[in-house]
This record gives sequence, structure tokens and C-alpha cells, in this order.
Amino acid sequence: MKDLENYRESFENHLINYVSTYKTPENLYAPIRYIVGLGGKRLRPMLTLLACDIFDKPFQNGLDAALAIELFHNFSLMHDDIMDRAPLRRGHVTVHEKWDTNTAILSGDALLILAYRLFENYSPLVFHQLATLFSKTAIEVCEGQQLDIDFQYTNQVSVGDYIDMICRKTAVLLGAALEMGAIIAECSPEDQQHLYEYGKNLGIAFQLQDDYLDVFGNSETFGKQLGGDIIENKKTFLYLKSLEKAPASQRTLLEELFSIRPENPTEKIETVTKIFLETGVTEETQITIQQYVEAALVHAQALQISHDNKQLLTEFAHYLTGRSFRLKGLYQSG
Amino acid sequence: MKDLENYRESFENHLINYVSTYKTPENLYAPIRYIVGLGGKRLRPMLTLLACDIFDKPFQNGLDAALAIELFHNFSLMHDDIMDRAPLRRGHVTVHEKWDTNTAILSGDALLILAYRLFENYSPLVFHQLATLFSKTAIEVCEGQQLDIDFQYTNQVSVGDYIDMICRKTAVLLGAALEMGAIIAECSPEDQQHLYEYGKNLGIAFQLQDDYLDVFGNSETFGKQLGGDIIENKKTFLYLKSLEKAPASQRTLLEELFSIRPENPTEKIETVTKIFLETGVTEETQITIQQYVEAALVHAQALQISHDNKQLLTEFAHYLTGRSFRLKGLYQSG
Repeated sequence: MKDLENYRESFENHLINYVSTYKTPENLYAPIRYIVGLGGKRLRPMLTLLACDIFDKPFQNGLDAALAIELFHNFSLMHDDIMDRAPLRRGHVTVHEKWDTNTAILSGDALLILAYRLFENYSPLVFHQLATLFSKTAIEVCEGQQLDIDFQYTNQVSVGDYIDMICRKTAVLLGAALEMGAIIAECSPEDQQHLYEYGKNLGIAFQLQDDYLDVFGNSETFGKQLGGDIIENKKTFLYLKSLEKAPASQRTLLEELFSIRPENPTEKIETVTKIFLETGVTEETQITIQQYVEAALVHAQALQISHDNKQLLTEFAHYLTGRSFRLKGLYQSG
Repeated sequence: MKDLENYRESFENHLINYVSTYKTPENLYAPIRYIVGLGGKRLRPMLTLLACDIFDKPFQNGLDAALAIELFHNFSLMHDDIMDRAPLRRGHVTVHEKWDTNTAILSGDALLILAYRLFENYSPLVFHQLATLFSKTAIEVCEGQQLDIDFQYTNQVSVGDYIDMICRKTAVLLGAALEMGAIIAECSPEDQQHLYEYGKNLGIAFQLQDDYLDVFGNSETFGKQLGGDIIENKKTFLYLKSLEKAPASQRTLLEELFSIRPENPTEKIETVTKIFLETGVTEETQITIQQYVEAALVHAQALQISHDNKQLLTEFAHYLTGRSFRLKGLYQSG
């Protein structure tokens, strides 16, 4: 078992060292230090370091790419929070609220550029591969965010459309985080691809689990308000699958409920939750999550790595989708 | 004399081909096609192509880098227009007005990423050099934009601070556009640096000339409302130099005028213009512009290129700062 806590400590040091080299103009860089200082699970950078490690290369080789991935993630949070008018991020005031929208736009732009700069520390050949993968992924994340926005304004969203959207918005970045570690470890192109697919499938499972926990999670451990997606009329997997499966009368009720925003949402949440349970989409969601986890594990098994390292990827998959708590302490939410 | 019109036609074709490969989601890419379709002088990409050409390499080799520079320029316009609440860009509605702010943020982000992608077409070694220069320049442009914002809220701005700000916000991108052509042409590091410095000094001269024409230009050929900087209380070279040179009473009047926004600005513009003339900063601005042009030409002369090509760079410098009209037709404003 790899010493994941060691990753975390090295990563946090690397993060602080890098962002503290950018000092002036203060109004450009203070919001960057602020958002990355809010913490978070650091899930994505851990994946990059883990990927180096399972190919028996020092995880330290992956620190710059891991940081690029984390900075990109924070760039997207900073801009998404403006778009969503979100007041809070990880329990703290968002950048556009603490400063203003213009600051959040410009500091976000700078974050994206600072992410790219981190690849410069690799050899030109590795740089080319990392930056190419990064740009491809980054544009997919923008496309995913656009689709997410578009879906608010149409009723023509299928379950397939939704999976495609979360794949771009969330899953490809997990795939890329892992593939970057594989590129740095100079493993075979086949293994790079398997690791990318492992991460991408896991990312879809992770997002579906997040949708599920938003309704059926434990409010103490979930970290967000339960029913938030229902309040926001988010067309999640649960909602879209219910529309597919529900009889006409329930379908109409569901569509009506997802067109209103009552001041007290308690009754709306209760009714929607009841429909989710009655249509059987709760079980179907769990089955679909399991299918994506299994697809991820097929790719993990195909890797040219030791049995122990495959076992680690299996555990990681179960941890991410909430079925294992062995790694819990290492990835505190916050 | 190089066939600059040929550059332009090739560049416009290249631009249209590239942006039209990005189709869906429509709401992400339509604003990109819109803003680049508004035209403009294409000054920066022309510099990249010119740089290839004067080192006797096909200018076509520079098309991808030239396009990256132009897309970056349009990214910065799209985000700056949000920050400035600008209703118009090149006589057309701005993206955040035609769509909305969220669209302008996200499409701008995508534009920046699409710019980076264009370097992928070069060899890994050239890619590394181009992307490194691009990121360094891009972060300086963000810093310049932040300083420009900061200067609105303080009276502690010196002429030196102002030059530093326009250097980052405007001039370094002209330097980088030229250096990229030099990198692609594989000329010596010394020549790359000379061309960068030529462009940077010219960029400062260009911005100072723009400040000057904002007050003393011909309203028909300038393309913007005269006195716009005075209306906006912009701390330009003319203003800051006047504060240095004016007697105490005039200085106080100037500071007062730059703290108000009268509904009818005619009298304010007249008074400020009179102070600019009386303090002699109009001549001083022209002298300073000339100094930067001369500094640029010293770097042009130091290049290991033919006499004719040096002559072309000299003409270009005079054209850019408005003292030559030979190239005028090639760079219509719009």
C-alpha cells in the first residue's frame, strides 16, 4: 500500500511554494492564494502522483503536473462560481463575493495560465504530451460546463446526453490526471490509455454517486445540503431516469415540480424523493454506478503493473464511490 | 518589400478554417466565431508572419502561432469588455451584451485554450519554446490588466508605473508575436531577443500614440470617440506627465476634473486639453514616442538580416506610430 499521506504533504508544500512565488499585483494573486488555500480533497492531484507510483517511478516526478491539474480545477471552480452566483465554496465566501466578479474573472484567467506553466519543467517531449492532453481535457471541461448550462433551458435531455455532459465536465479531468502520471512515468501508450479510461469511468461513477447522495446521503457526512439538486431543478441521472420510467401522470408531476422554486422546498423534495423511490431509479442508479466502476476495474486489470498496485486501484475505486472507508482519513473533505 | 496582403489573405483563411472546426456546443463556440469575425487590424498575427519572412522562411510556417496570438488577443478583449462593461467592440455589440456575461466568461476561457492548442502542430522543441513564451506573455497581460484596474483607485501612479503597465498590458504581446516568428524561423537566440525588444518598444510607442490620438487625433480616422480617456478619468501618460509638470493650482484642477463624470463632458475635455497643451506634455509625448521608436530601431538594426528587411521593419515602426501611410491600405482599422 502506497503512502498516500506522504503524497498529500509533498503536494501541499509544492502548492504553497508555487503560488507564493506570484506576489504582485496583489489583487491578481491574492484570490488565487485564497481559493487554493481553502483546501479540498486534492483528489485529482493525488491521482497523478498515484499513477507515477504504480509504475514504480518516484511520485515526486508528478508534482508539477499534479499541481497543474489542481490549479485548473480551481480555475474552473472560480469561474463556475461566478456563473452559478454561488455565495460559498467549501464553507467559505467565494472569490467573486469576497472581491468582485471582475477580480474572479481575471484571477481565474491567471490560474489557467499558471497551470500551463507548470508543464514547462518537463522535457520538451513530455511537455508536448502533457500540454496536449491538458488542452484537450480543458476544452472538454468547458464544453461540459456549457452543456450543463444548456440543459437548464431545454426538456430535450436524455440520460445519454447527461452521461456525456458529466463525462466532459467531471470525468475526463480524473482520466487526464491519471494519464499525466502515466506519461511522466513513461509507461506504454496502451497503459496510458487504460489508466485514462479507468479514471474516466470512475469519474462518471463518482458524479452519479454524488447525484445519488444529494438525495439519499447522510446530511452529516455529505457536506452539502441534501436535496440541493432538487431545489435547483437540476436534471440529474435520477430525474432523467425517472422521466423515462414513470407513468404519464407521475412524469407530468415531476416536470411540473422541476419548473418551480417554492420558498419552502421541503414538500417538493419529499414528493420528488418519493417518485425516485417508486420508479425504482434509486436501485438503477446504484446498478449504473457499479457498471462504471466495473468498467474502470477492467482497465485497471489490463495494466502492466503488480498485483498489489492493481489492488490499490480497486480499493481506490471503491473508496471513491463510497463503498470503502479504508482510505477515508487520507481524503478529508473540506 | 514583402507582400503583406498575401499574409492577410492566408491568415484570414487559416482563422476561419480553425474556428469552424469547433461547432458544438453552439453556445460555447458561436461567440468565438462572432468576435474573431468582427475583423480588426490583425496587427499581431501579421508581425508573426513578417518575422518568419524576414528570416527567409515561408511565412506560412508561422500561421498557427500567428493565430494563437490573435485568439489570445480576442480572449483578452472578450474578458476585458465584461470588466469595462463595454457595449461595443469594433462598432458591434460586445459578446456579454449580445449573449450574457456567463457566456462571455466561458467562451473566453475556451478561446484561451484554443490558442494554446495551435502550438501543438509544431515539433516538441519548438512547441516548448512557443508555449513557454506564450504563457509568460499571457500572465504579463493579466498583470497589466490588473494594474490598469488598480490605477483607477489610487493617486499614487507615476509615469514609470504607467509605462510598466502598458508594457505588460499591450507591448509584450507585440514583442512575443515577433519572437514567435523568429523561433519558428529558427534564428539565433540573440536575433529572437532583438526582435522581441523591437516589438516591445514599438508596442509602448504604439500605446502612447493611441493615448495622444485619443485627445488630439482626427475624429474621422481615429475610429473612437475623441476625449474618451478624459471622460473615463484614465490616468494616461498625458495626464500623469501633466501632473508632474503643472504648477500646483493647475495640478489641483486636473485632479479635481479627473474625479468627476459630468453628464456633458465637453467643457471638461476642453479644459483638460488646454492644460495638456499649456504644460507642454503634447510635445513631450511625441518626444517619448520617438524615443521608443528609436529604441526599437536599434534592435532592428542589430538583426542578422538583409538591408531590405531592416528597411521594412523601419517602415513598419513609422507606420505603427502614424508617421507613414505607405502600408495604410494593408491594415484597415475596423
